[in-house]
Amino acid sequence: MSENSEKRVLRLGIAGLGTVGVGVVQQLHENRDAIYARAGCAIEVAAVSARDPGRNRGVDLSGIRWFADARSLATASGIDIVVELIGGAEGVARELVEAALSHGRDVITANKALLATHGARLARCAHDNGAALLFEASVAGGIPAIKFVREGLAADRLLRVGGILNGTCNYILTTMRDTGRDFADVLAEAQALGYAEADPTTDVDGWDAAHKLAILAALAFGRPVAFDEMHVEGIRGVQACDQHFAREMGYRIKLLGMARQLEDGRIEAFMRPCLIAQQTALAHVEGVFNAVVTEGTFSGPMMIEGRGAGAGPTASAVIADVIDLARGKALPVWGVSPQSPATCAPRALLSGAYYLRVNVHDRPGVVAEIAAALRDAGVSMRGLSQHDAGRATDSTVPLALVTHETTEASMMQVMTAINGLASVIGTPLLLKIETV
Amino acid sequence: MSENSEKRVLRLGIAGLGTVGVGVVQQLHENRDAIYARAGCAIEVAAVSARDPGRNRGVDLSGIRWFADARSLATASGIDIVVELIGGAEGVARELVEAALSHGRDVITANKALLATHGARLARCAHDNGAALLFEASVAGGIPAIKFVREGLAADRLLRVGGILNGTCNYILTTMRDTGRDFADVLAEAQALGYAEADPTTDVDGWDAAHKLAILAALAFGRPVAFDEMHVEGIRGVQACDQHFAREMGYRIKLLGMARQLEDGRIEAFMRPCLIAQQTALAHVEGVFNAVVTEGTFSGPMMIEGRGAGAGPTASAVIADVIDLARGKALPVWGVSPQSPATCAPRALLSGAYYLRVNVHDRPGVVAEIAAALRDAGVSMRGLSQHDAGRATDSTVPLALVTHETTEASMMQVMTAINGLASVIGTPLLLKIETV
Repeated sequence: MSENSEKRVLRLGIAGLGTVGVGVVQQLHENRDAIYARAGCAIEVAAVSARDPGRNRGVDLSGIRWFADARSLATASGIDIVVELIGGAEGVARELVEAALSHGRDVITANKALLATHGARLARCAHDNGAALLFEASVAGGIPAIKFVREGLAADRLLRVGGILNGTCNYILTTMRDTGRDFADVLAEAQALGYAEADPTTDVDGWDAAHKLAILAALAFGRPVAFDEMHVEGIRGVQACDQHFAREMGYRIKLLGMARQLEDGRIEAFMRPCLIAQQTALAHVEGVFNAVVTEGTFSGPMMIEGRGAGAGPTASAVIADVIDLARGKALPVWGVSPQSPATCAPRALLSGAYYLRVNVHDRPGVVAEIAAALRDAGVSMRGLSQHDAGRATDSTVPLALVTHETTEASMMQVMTAINGLASVIGTPLLLKIETV
Repeated sequence: MSENSEKRVLRLGIAGLGTVGVGVVQQLHENRDAIYARAGCAIEVAAVSARDPGRNRGVDLSGIRWFADARSLATASGIDIVVELIGGAEGVARELVEAALSHGRDVITANKALLATHGARLARCAHDNGAALLFEASVAGGIPAIKFVREGLAADRLLRVGGILNGTCNYILTTMRDTGRDFADVLAEAQALGYAEADPTTDVDGWDAAHKLAILAALAFGRPVAFDEMHVEGIRGVQACDQHFAREMGYRIKLLGMARQLEDGRIEAFMRPCLIAQQTALAHVEGVFNAVVTEGTFSGPMMIEGRGAGAGPTASAVIADVIDLARGKALPVWGVSPQSPATCAPRALLSGAYYLRVNVHDRPGVVAEIAAALRDAGVSMRGLSQHDAGRATDSTVPLALVTHETTEASMMQVMTAINGLASVIGTPLLLKIETV
């Protein structure tokens, strides 16, 4: 408790002045007194780095040193903490973070791609040089998800961690359900509203969410996860009729990630659209909101929900990390001493109940063909639905079924068989039914 | 980062060996390796104090020093942290905590009554003696609610904090709704199942939840709240018919606490049964689950949900505090330097929409009398419902109405007027409709 540190100042070097970087400068200014009281010392922006020094960003940057090359912040004098808000798993962001940690300088970053891809190496580098690496802003914006898993549940053995981790996808899926509109249509609207990027790949194909899941899993299980082995699937295949079927069956469709530690030390991890029972709290995480769920041996199931993105929440998370450092807290990157990455179990090993939707030619014998494909794979059907509400054209009709508990391997076999049927049009959609 | 502290040992003195105390001993044993990795040092139970040293508690206490008087733990040698699990706002618990802090010894407690009642004094005592006082287990069991508000949202200015904070009440209300049974009936069952105490007063009259709200409010606003000024109301008045009306109107009934900081520095705080719109995530916090909600200027609305009680989750929270201390973290009690308590605004100043249910004699003119009472208080009605489903006897019938936005002062005037009507039987129920 060093309350008598009136004159202590913590000097930040901020790399990247996009909306989050500007948000950090703004909040440090607007909440100055409250932050001072919480941190026990003053926080000052000593240096910044961004492409265009002349651009008006709506904040006063006078008196702050400017660096054309962000990498200079790693070693420049008069900086206590490097705040990396450039983004990207490679290039300048990675070079800056590695150089700063190697220099023994504390780093705060919002860079999920960097941590998901190079987390093991960075943890080792931070450890070897006695530097702290904090990244609350990398997962779920203003939700203190990192702190929740790494510190809040530190005493417990976590069985699983996951959640709804991409606001763009959740917004699109929620809007599709509420309006009955198609994916492409809602995506275009989300882009117009600024909820989706011009190039939506990172979001709608699940990569952004998968990066976040990799970070949460590393914290939950105390070691990084081999990211390139994770099963990642986006939401492009979800059609208006799927929303209809899901509602009828008592579910909601969410892009959901889940990671479990298996007995053999491997991690079972996926990010994919799933069906969630609509009476659960997780099913009511709607629109741009995110949620993180955990299950611990002692603490049981838990969920934390809030706005997963946006300059305000994300900048707030960056400053929470600054306050932690000011208070003298420096945990190992993954909560424990550095470990080698954990291997992911192959997708085929997953098990559970599944939802399968196929668009078929509306003619006799089609259901029999699909039922045969399930039978041949040893999959037992729990229910089947077909009706005109989801009818695409006069001659084709969507058909949805849910299975009893089975394996992903069996469902992959079913998918192969169904894809080969002449009566099937387009790509069938397979969704895991996840119990949360 | 002091990873090279292989030989460091942190020695606990545990006062109180009820289910939580035993849970702490058990989890420290079962999760020894994981906790060692997280804490960066060994955690050892050096001493305990409980009434009956001979009782078999299912854990091995051999080699652990026994103190007949818990207060001895405050100054006994060989103890680094006092863990107070006795409970109660006065008596031994209070004396032990004050003595330990005065002695400069760090204290971890699960004692919500003590913190809610004497928080200001304890914060001052901890500060003056350079001791830490941690209390994660005092609110919402295994949910890291304290850390969430005090550290996770440290950078933000919180506008409000609250939630569903008593599992017993939430279980009773959920079961009443699902089964249509009466309060007394469900309470008796909850007692038989061990979800409610033999003397349920602390839970069902709202005191337990109010203590937790007081602690959350103190953390959110950086200063303790004058607990005896808080508006506290339990759930005994909720009848089966209220659950029926609430569902019909699109709401669920929850014992909900909410605290807001007013412009003048006063705190508006209540713990009372409320109606919550059923499409919200908070309305889906069911059974014994708890939830904490916050709203921050930058972070927006947030919710954290999980099991709010039980030996496992609560012990887990105690150990998370131990790990924090092991990692060298010691924040001021309320997140900032000690402040004097904040005054609560009087109940009459609250505003919002309300639900009012009256049991009346089924005869002409009754609705007109009640409508007149609302009119005289300047309250505008949004809807009215009366039907036989909730009929108590042949001659009496429940009548429920919801109002437009009004003030609590006006509703108190309505209640007084209605209580004076000859056609009204028993006590009418007034519930706030809370937007969450």
